[in-house]
Amino acid sequence: MAWDKAFDRVFAPRSIAVLGASSKGKPGGVNMFIDGLKDMRYKGRIYPINDHADEIGGYKCYPSLAAVPEVPDLVIVGVNASRAEQALEECIAKGARNIHMFTAGFSETGEEEGAELAERLRGIAARGRLNIIGPNCMGIYSPRGRISPWGQLPAKVGPIAFITQSGALGYEFTHLLPDHGLFMSKVISYGNGYVMDCTDFLEYLETDPDTKYIAMYLEGVRDGKKLLEMVKRISPKKPVVILKGGVTSDGARAVASHTGSLAGEGAAWDAFFAQSGAIKVDSIDEMVDVLQALVRLPPCTGRGVGIIGGAGGNSVVAADVCARSGLAVPAISEATQSEMRSFIQVAGTSVQNPMDIGMQIRSPEDFLRVFQLLADDPRIDIILAVVNVFPRRMGARILSKMMLDSLLDYWRKSPHWKPLCISIRNPAEKVEAERYRLALTKLFLQEGIPVFKNVERAGRALYQYTGYYRRLAETPPLAM
Amino acid sequence: MAWDKAFDRVFAPRSIAVLGASSKGKPGGVNMFIDGLKDMRYKGRIYPINDHADEIGGYKCYPSLAAVPEVPDLVIVGVNASRAEQALEECIAKGARNIHMFTAGFSETGEEEGAELAERLRGIAARGRLNIIGPNCMGIYSPRGRISPWGQLPAKVGPIAFITQSGALGYEFTHLLPDHGLFMSKVISYGNGYVMDCTDFLEYLETDPDTKYIAMYLEGVRDGKKLLEMVKRISPKKPVVILKGGVTSDGARAVASHTGSLAGEGAAWDAFFAQSGAIKVDSIDEMVDVLQALVRLPPCTGRGVGIIGGAGGNSVVAADVCARSGLAVPAISEATQSEMRSFIQVAGTSVQNPMDIGMQIRSPEDFLRVFQLLADDPRIDIILAVVNVFPRRMGARILSKMMLDSLLDYWRKSPHWKPLCISIRNPAEKVEAERYRLALTKLFLQEGIPVFKNVERAGRALYQYTGYYRRLAETPPLAM
Repeated sequence: MAWDKAFDRVFAPRSIAVLGASSKGKPGGVNMFIDGLKDMRYKGRIYPINDHADEIGGYKCYPSLAAVPEVPDLVIVGVNASRAEQALEECIAKGARNIHMFTAGFSETGEEEGAELAERLRGIAARGRLNIIGPNCMGIYSPRGRISPWGQLPAKVGPIAFITQSGALGYEFTHLLPDHGLFMSKVISYGNGYVMDCTDFLEYLETDPDTKYIAMYLEGVRDGKKLLEMVKRISPKKPVVILKGGVTSDGARAVASHTGSLAGEGAAWDAFFAQSGAIKVDSIDEMVDVLQALVRLPPCTGRGVGIIGGAGGNSVVAADVCARSGLAVPAISEATQSEMRSFIQVAGTSVQNPMDIGMQIRSPEDFLRVFQLLADDPRIDIILAVVNVFPRRMGARILSKMMLDSLLDYWRKSPHWKPLCISIRNPAEKVEAERYRLALTKLFLQEGIPVFKNVERAGRALYQYTGYYRRLAETPPLAM
Repeated sequence: MAWDKAFDRVFAPRSIAVLGASSKGKPGGVNMFIDGLKDMRYKGRIYPINDHADEIGGYKCYPSLAAVPEVPDLVIVGVNASRAEQALEECIAKGARNIHMFTAGFSETGEEEGAELAERLRGIAARGRLNIIGPNCMGIYSPRGRISPWGQLPAKVGPIAFITQSGALGYEFTHLLPDHGLFMSKVISYGNGYVMDCTDFLEYLETDPDTKYIAMYLEGVRDGKKLLEMVKRISPKKPVVILKGGVTSDGARAVASHTGSLAGEGAAWDAFFAQSGAIKVDSIDEMVDVLQALVRLPPCTGRGVGIIGGAGGNSVVAADVCARSGLAVPAISEATQSEMRSFIQVAGTSVQNPMDIGMQIRSPEDFLRVFQLLADDPRIDIILAVVNVFPRRMGARILSKMMLDSLLDYWRKSPHWKPLCISIRNPAEKVEAERYRLALTKLFLQEGIPVFKNVERAGRALYQYTGYYRRLAETPPLAM
């Protein structure tokens, strides 16, 4: 299916009908979408369809879609699977084009009828030119349209789109991104993807002016060749970050019973990732980390990380972690080292990189000087500050705070300098420690500096983000 | 150096002298050990040595070690590196045998004199039969002896010992373990290890009745062959978990400027880990996770994990994560599946494994039945429950709580059944979410059930723990 102009309305519908709205309001049912619209202060008209009730959630009920006084821009279908075909016929009769099909119970059940029903749904959709999202999915979050499947989400529009076959991961993503100070253009949870597939949504997002970065959670794809061509074409302009569910054979079986997709051979997906230019991530956390780096840091192809903070063994392990991630932790130049030695005492410190100097520096000015020297060193491409949050040692906390203050100072004074990010780790099982971590994290996110929860995550994200720009530098841009 | 009977006193010294105690009490100086003893309510006698002060930290000062009215069981040396040799001569003259040498500034500085000084220290130690821990280290935590370099730590004795070349990682370890409900027998931070090396401490711990598990953070070792032989011999009786710092070339350079150790070739250490039977971990967090599994779960050689909880895409990703970790997530038997189908509806669920059933089960009894069926399935060796903590969706929270209550119920009723552990993940940047995670975590730790912070960490720890028992099953025990 090629993308259809009418589909645009899905993201800012003037009216929404809800088929299968229940007067009993059972939890987990389709009524939650009505609640979600209310939470979002959706400004359009809502039409619950139910022939046994007068009103649901404060909205007047209609006995059928036919009885609704206009053609809804979006119909949310939440009837049982056995009534799904009939519901689509009602949409065709009404002239409605955009359907979010929440209904589950198709091929993901493993029963034979599921796959047959899928075929029939495709036939109906083709006949009625229906843009069907789903079935077995949570549908749309659009801050511009003020619609959300999960109740209150930010009304602020950001540059990141997410296409997902999992509603649960859509829920996580839409909540985690704002927690990290990142915002979204459009999120599409499309479940089994019987009619519109990820390639259709990609085609839409390719030219969507709000969208600058595209994230995807995929379990399967109907036209792998098309996906490859599209991602190849799009990723140089808009980075494409993909979490593929079912990359292992155990995961693939889980996929079959989740969205009924064919997860495909691991080898085929390896080839896809090798050729497409997509950034492959292994978890939603890594996806958020990589997006942080892409959105917040300037383009960078270098791998040389200057590590500052962390002490003793922590510095050693941080260097190992970065090196294992595919980055380098090069010794800084002799000239920089001797300049650092001029104001940092020798015993118990190292100024080679990692910079294990925390316990010996006592003034913000000295910290600032270290950051500047590090940024000026030609072997260093990125600065990574490492902080561990512990509630019990106030001295270390004050010291970390001083380092971080200097870091902010450096960042504000030197916006043209090298990429900077921070790992703030809280390994303690204490609420106060988490409160302190959150306060520090917020401080840096507000300044636009990426913050990661530990060095492992920082190293991985930095490798992925610089890897994107390395691939871009190696590949001549396509003619557009 | 072979282990010496007098060394035993280090862990329960009747008296401690502190050389280099300062009347100015500068932060990070040797006085912190006096403060630490006070915090621990150490019951022995403390002798600060300082010829300019009458008292330090409330303890009477002595002008020299010679003036102290007894031979101290432990001498903490915190003088400058230039005075280190003289301090050791004073110890010999006094007849003191056990030294914790806090002093830094030796081979780790990269200056030539460092290495020469190391040789001279070894000569002095041999002549005076000194048991020297260090230099450049934090020394001893012993709950039985009530001594700690980091102030208040539990006085409770546990089965885990830690030998570490990094004081910072010693600090982390000693604070993280109690946070996870685990306790220690002895912790030895030994820094550069010029005199006593890790093999000496291992020899001591091998026969220490308090110690059942041995963790190590190593940057280098003087006698690699000896270490290999010892770990081979000890690990079948007492699992040995090792974090090796400087496994990458960047990390190895960091090691040189931290403890001045030769980190050694990566290949040599690979061979060591392949032959020794040690459990190789990559971070302190992983070390804690593996110890949780070893201490809390019964021996298990199987890799088949039954995953329950997590929803949709989270289940798929959890299966991928476990499979990538080297575990298996086998489909449960047809018989078990059909029994589950008898009380769980088909749409939107999966009972194949991972069990994606959270949204459809409404009673604690049904959850309990799922756990019991899972545990009875011959293909399942370990049960892993997966919970995500989100503050905003109360329904999901209540559901998770119900699942977890049933889990506790299962655990209490069926102590002879299969190993059980939980992943409780809080990806949200919210204090309330962390408070909820901590409350849940505590509940399970109190019952003796291991809790991991995410599925990645759970998968890794379970692979490591079962791997230990697999190796043990494959290797015939040595004659003792």
